[in-house]
Amino acid sequence: MQFHHHGYVSTDPRILPAAGVGIDRPADLPEHIDVLIVGSGPAGIVTAAQLAQFPNVVTRVVERRDGRLVLGQADGIQARSVETFQAFGFAQQIIQEAYRITETDFWSPDPENPANIVRSSITPDDANGISEFPHLIVNQARVIDYFAEYARRAPARGDVDYGYEFVGLEVTGEGEYPVTVTLRRVSGHTGAGINAAQSGDQAGETVVVHAKYVVGADGARSSVRRAIGGSLAGSTSLHAWGVMDVLAVTDFPDFRKKCIIHSAAGSILHIPREGNHLARIYVDLGETDEHDAGKVRDTALDEIIARANAILHPYTLDVRDVPWHSVYEVAHRLTDRFDDAATSPDGKGRVFLMGDACHTHSAKAGQGMNVSMQDGWNLGWKLGYVLEGRSPDTLLKTYSDERWVTSKNLIDFDHQWSTLMAKKPEEFASPDEVAEFYVQTAEFPAGFMTQYTDTILVGSDAHQGLASGFTLGKRFKSVLTTRVSDAVDVHLGHHHRADGRFRIYAFADASGEQLDAWAQWMLESPDSPIAKFTPTGADLDSIFDVKAVYQQHHHSVDIARVSKLFLPASGPFALTDYEKIYAAHPTDDIFEARGISREGAIVVVRPDQYVSAILPLTATTELTEFLSATFLPQNA
Amino acid sequence: MQFHHHGYVSTDPRILPAAGVGIDRPADLPEHIDVLIVGSGPAGIVTAAQLAQFPNVVTRVVERRDGRLVLGQADGIQARSVETFQAFGFAQQIIQEAYRITETDFWSPDPENPANIVRSSITPDDANGISEFPHLIVNQARVIDYFAEYARRAPARGDVDYGYEFVGLEVTGEGEYPVTVTLRRVSGHTGAGINAAQSGDQAGETVVVHAKYVVGADGARSSVRRAIGGSLAGSTSLHAWGVMDVLAVTDFPDFRKKCIIHSAAGSILHIPREGNHLARIYVDLGETDEHDAGKVRDTALDEIIARANAILHPYTLDVRDVPWHSVYEVAHRLTDRFDDAATSPDGKGRVFLMGDACHTHSAKAGQGMNVSMQDGWNLGWKLGYVLEGRSPDTLLKTYSDERWVTSKNLIDFDHQWSTLMAKKPEEFASPDEVAEFYVQTAEFPAGFMTQYTDTILVGSDAHQGLASGFTLGKRFKSVLTTRVSDAVDVHLGHHHRADGRFRIYAFADASGEQLDAWAQWMLESPDSPIAKFTPTGADLDSIFDVKAVYQQHHHSVDIARVSKLFLPASGPFALTDYEKIYAAHPTDDIFEARGISREGAIVVVRPDQYVSAILPLTATTELTEFLSATFLPQNA
Repeated sequence: MQFHHHGYVSTDPRILPAAGVGIDRPADLPEHIDVLIVGSGPAGIVTAAQLAQFPNVVTRVVERRDGRLVLGQADGIQARSVETFQAFGFAQQIIQEAYRITETDFWSPDPENPANIVRSSITPDDANGISEFPHLIVNQARVIDYFAEYARRAPARGDVDYGYEFVGLEVTGEGEYPVTVTLRRVSGHTGAGINAAQSGDQAGETVVVHAKYVVGADGARSSVRRAIGGSLAGSTSLHAWGVMDVLAVTDFPDFRKKCIIHSAAGSILHIPREGNHLARIYVDLGETDEHDAGKVRDTALDEIIARANAILHPYTLDVRDVPWHSVYEVAHRLTDRFDDAATSPDGKGRVFLMGDACHTHSAKAGQGMNVSMQDGWNLGWKLGYVLEGRSPDTLLKTYSDERWVTSKNLIDFDHQWSTLMAKKPEEFASPDEVAEFYVQTAEFPAGFMTQYTDTILVGSDAHQGLASGFTLGKRFKSVLTTRVSDAVDVHLGHHHRADGRFRIYAFADASGEQLDAWAQWMLESPDSPIAKFTPTGADLDSIFDVKAVYQQHHHSVDIARVSKLFLPASGPFALTDYEKIYAAHPTDDIFEARGISREGAIVVVRPDQYVSAILPLTATTELTEFLSATFLPQNA
Repeated sequence: MQFHHHGYVSTDPRILPAAGVGIDRPADLPEHIDVLIVGSGPAGIVTAAQLAQFPNVVTRVVERRDGRLVLGQADGIQARSVETFQAFGFAQQIIQEAYRITETDFWSPDPENPANIVRSSITPDDANGISEFPHLIVNQARVIDYFAEYARRAPARGDVDYGYEFVGLEVTGEGEYPVTVTLRRVSGHTGAGINAAQSGDQAGETVVVHAKYVVGADGARSSVRRAIGGSLAGSTSLHAWGVMDVLAVTDFPDFRKKCIIHSAAGSILHIPREGNHLARIYVDLGETDEHDAGKVRDTALDEIIARANAILHPYTLDVRDVPWHSVYEVAHRLTDRFDDAATSPDGKGRVFLMGDACHTHSAKAGQGMNVSMQDGWNLGWKLGYVLEGRSPDTLLKTYSDERWVTSKNLIDFDHQWSTLMAKKPEEFASPDEVAEFYVQTAEFPAGFMTQYTDTILVGSDAHQGLASGFTLGKRFKSVLTTRVSDAVDVHLGHHHRADGRFRIYAFADASGEQLDAWAQWMLESPDSPIAKFTPTGADLDSIFDVKAVYQQHHHSVDIARVSKLFLPASGPFALTDYEKIYAAHPTDDIFEARGISREGAIVVVRPDQYVSAILPLTATTELTEFLSATFLPQNA
């Protein structure tokens, strides 16, 4: 964590100094808003948290509820999301309070007495070491809390405006604020946070605001989607599930482990929850009649509990409290659009959809919240770039291009998974079919199969071989390194914070000479990305966070001989930043682990941690050319 | 983290439900107080944080300042303190914002050109793996913030009452509140926290309160110490040091590493600070004249900076900002008493001293705040035990017995260390003398040499051989284990929270039969510590947190066959606690690592994490006998 460079900080350094629009942020919703986010769920709040790092962007989040979410339904946190939490500074905190999935136990009918279930196998959750981050279960309400706290502490002082319902919008395409949005006050209450100045007598009032961009993060029944003529298409299965969060006493020995249970009486997906006592149990209620017309959804809680007991036989589940339960039929639906480009007057997208407004599916693979958060992060920094004038608005087109594919893959995966979960024991090819599918496909639900292609943000694969372990378009997979200045072991990727900057990792050649030449070009050439894309007067590393990684042991790197590119001055005292020079770790050499050429390589990583370009140290012109597609020249 | 067992928790689970005196805690200082703590520095605030876990104890902390500490001088955090932070739930949080010492670089005159310094050696900070916790540097203000937050979130809702000056006290020895304390309001301001109801017009007002116990945590010039007739005796060296926290630009390559520099122009101890930019520099100002009468303390900042530059030659230090600086002569002083037992009417201690009120010394070994925090933790739980009726008041005598020895050792160690730091290069027997002393004595400054002996809290060493790696009287050194219920790797000691409970670790024999017998005795015998010392109606684990550790791989431990002693019911729903059963970790077997007998062993650990007793599983009578010295029978 870096601070004090603007003077001594006595209080929590996580609270950044307010800047720009954060200095005098109005408590009431202003009439003109750069980004209006509708909905404060996982997708919307991540967008807001990312935008709070852009001090010149007025972002507001409207939420129909009158305060923070008390009890959310999503709870599965894949490793990619924990990696994201790390970027937003709260991974360790949420790990502390979450349930951690390390193994999954599979149960099936006892071959000798099929009325009883027996444990058939145990598989590790991350058998292949996909991530150094854990797989967690924690209520989405807490996830939202942490992102909201991040937004409140960030320079633009983001927060949620509670008690506003979205009524409609019109994209005029005219003027500086081309989207007119009508909201209705549904309550005067406000939640915690900076914005608590509303009075309670304005319920029912209509409020009209003018926005540059609108984000529809308002759930599966999205009104924003409807307002831009979008729809959600797909299918509903004829298989019903009961789901309940229970505090219970049981003799089932795996109550605190994730279990996939297939028995003669149906299936259970059992997910322990945070806090040592709570568990979420998905209980198979069987096929529904196609003329049932949703009547299965009236299934009583007692019946779900009875069914769970039947499936768990010979074990019993004595349910003592049920904070939440529901009944649903699995549906898979995907939106026909992620933005309004197709209908907007000039073909430019100004209204964007994300999260459940775009994709809904079974809850059982624990994917929804995770994919939604990546939607939010993907769009958040792009909006920030366009609104701060770093990038042309064509950058926003990549949001739909990138997230539509990811959503489609999600729906397809979940279809496979939920079909498998609904099978009867006798329908399986082998007793281990579920366990095998689970292990083979682990990278997808962990969140690491996303690979962006064919946009201005992904460079040519001509030089992929220079860093074969950093796949273009996939997220930058971290490796342990040693920071040279203070000899602290640092997971390189964990210092990629959600501050909106691109990272440029310069992996040194063996002698370091080529790196020196590259660094000199970066510092001195009028054609370098720093010269072209960094605003006059801004700190050297304000747009690009450039880090050197040496092949040698950290004791062999002489900081006095390293280029000033990697020791930039920052803040009013022009103090040296010592946290940009790294060395291969003695026991986990990043050059070996990620197949990095001993001739060195440049790896460009986007603000949302996806690998954007790989180039040789000599490809200076190509680096600037590649970045020119995303960045606008700053110094005319 | 365990929660939900009293029903669903939506908000931050670190905020525990208020209980007892925390439910309706008055904002103003009450007239009757169980424990009045004078001073909110590291010692006082730890005492308060620990006592906030005892819901029936009225604890108040008075502090002369009108709000939180903004800039403290202490900054060294030894690994034992980080272990303590873990118990108080904020180790990860403070690690995130602290500077981490991993190596120390030694600099000395260049043999070929003695006017220049050169790096002579580099030593790892914890070469022998003394602790899994890091050695940190972070401002004491942040440490106090975290403990204060812990206290505010604990059941008794502890907090600091700002703006009260201690005037005097009288130990009457009479009635329920035998100490009468006079305070003066020095300001009406209050700090953050629950207690913010004071008005500003009461400055100068005298307030008299009646306390059962008073804790003097009011610093080196302690008024509480004076009030009980105590003094601080010792010596002042005739060697002066300047110390400054600087934001600076330098070509000295080790600016971000801890350095011990001996040059022809004097010595520097260089300590990088949190946030990547700040450093604390102790600059040798040389011998002082014995008739100097403290004039050296007027040394100007510019002169300190000039001296630093002379020592660092050929490097230069361009100081841009100095948040704090001071000049001092090293003094070593120890109090003649830790409590008022010698002067109190009935020979019982009711006023206790801690922290700088008891021991002052050089700052350069980074010890003061650490030893003070252990003072506070040691006394905190003991006061809680006596006031909640768990223990006789004779327990309080152990505070002085235990902490006096520790303080004496501290003064002795620091005397050696500061003498070494003040030596001139030519006085060293070898160039590596400092580095060798540093490595050889690392366990002391890391905080792990403390060993309590000869009190009711330390059992016989007859059975030390059953767990040779858990030294009686030293702190329980954690080892990685696997929690059986959820297959999560858990550092066993990290789950020893500062909740005021004794831990009883029951290491299983190979077959588990002896463990079963012991557990049955614990559950069923009227002579077991649970039967004797747990209040009627309280949860099974409310006084003793009893954990089983098996020798086998966690897959070989069948939870269905484990005694209910290790699966206790808790809370209104009588839910099962699944976090008390552990298995040896496959790659770091605790039985091997700590020399635990394959016949099993009982290891009793005090609330402040020191090993209290080691017994065979068969020694049931001895266990109860040992605990009877500390615990009062609860069920008459």
